[in-house]
Amino acid sequence: MDKQQALGMIRNIPDFPQKGIQFKDITTLIKDPEGLKWASEEIAKQYKDKAITKVLGIESRGFILGTPIAIEIGAGFVPIRKPGKLPAKVIEQTYQKEYGTDTIEIHEDALSADDVVMIHDDLLATGGTLEAAVKLAKRAGVKKIYVSCIIELEALEGRKQIDKEIEIFSLLKI
Amino acid sequence: MDKQQALGMIRNIPDFPQKGIQFKDITTLIKDPEGLKWASEEIAKQYKDKAITKVLGIESRGFILGTPIAIEIGAGFVPIRKPGKLPAKVIEQTYQKEYGTDTIEIHEDALSADDVVMIHDDLLATGGTLEAAVKLAKRAGVKKIYVSCIIELEALEGRKQIDKEIEIFSLLKI
Repeated sequence: MDKQQALGMIRNIPDFPQKGIQFKDITTLIKDPEGLKWASEEIAKQYKDKAITKVLGIESRGFILGTPIAIEIGAGFVPIRKPGKLPAKVIEQTYQKEYGTDTIEIHEDALSADDVVMIHDDLLATGGTLEAAVKLAKRAGVKKIYVSCIIELEALEGRKQIDKEIEIFSLLKI
Repeated sequence: MDKQQALGMIRNIPDFPQKGIQFKDITTLIKDPEGLKWASEEIAKQYKDKAITKVLGIESRGFILGTPIAIEIGAGFVPIRKPGKLPAKVIEQTYQKEYGTDTIEIHEDALSADDVVMIHDDLLATGGTLEAAVKLAKRAGVKKIYVSCIIELEALEGRKQIDKEIEIFSLLKI
């Protein structure tokens, strides 16, 4: 498996979830045992020497590779979820979307000052959700933050929305 | 790590998501690198010789261990999601909840007649969601179906809701 093959396994769905959006469907990549293992290992490789203590996966598709990457690099896994889903005390972050706002939450006691975290989501599009997740991790007072995704839609320049000090790794660029 | 230690790392949240329910919070287990790795490996062990081709994880908490287990046993991963989340053509299954109904979906082309699947969710409570997932896999015409969960709430007897022919593995019984 290489990047070219992996790109060929991602399905393009026109007009989903709304007209004009070309949705990049990773389910066709991850239902393949080789595709799943390759994607997880390729991302994990980037963080082998970074002493990451926790991988933060963004609900729901950030959970998919978030945990195998965490296990591969010897880290724990912390979910970042939509409002009302986490059962204990949370800190929340609201951010701007194309129409209206959205909010994500993390357990208040999930992170500490010693943590080096890697925030993972499947997609870097406009960057709004990942930047909100970076803000959550900063407010939790962690030592260092990295960001990774499976697919980066380069034309949308979402990377520019995220704090310049943060190192971002995208497995596939489209 | 053993079962007794793992049970001690699961947090009990009274009255969540509604009054009278004692919510079993796995986030305190999986944020620990040892807890995460142990839980994933212990479940994967049960399926090493079962020739599983796909692990089906139920949104959202079934995604958390679903993928590392899939990678460990050399299977692919297929998400079972809430309505409207999967971008391609789906088959759906509606099921009874305590109040009202709920629906889950799977991509129509995600499974084939050659597949041996293991359906995974974090919790086996009343068994409604897992039984609906079993029905989805049957309708997709797979060869054999297994079910696993992290926690089984034995007093609720959810196991009885699931087709008696299906082998169910729960890592921790409460």
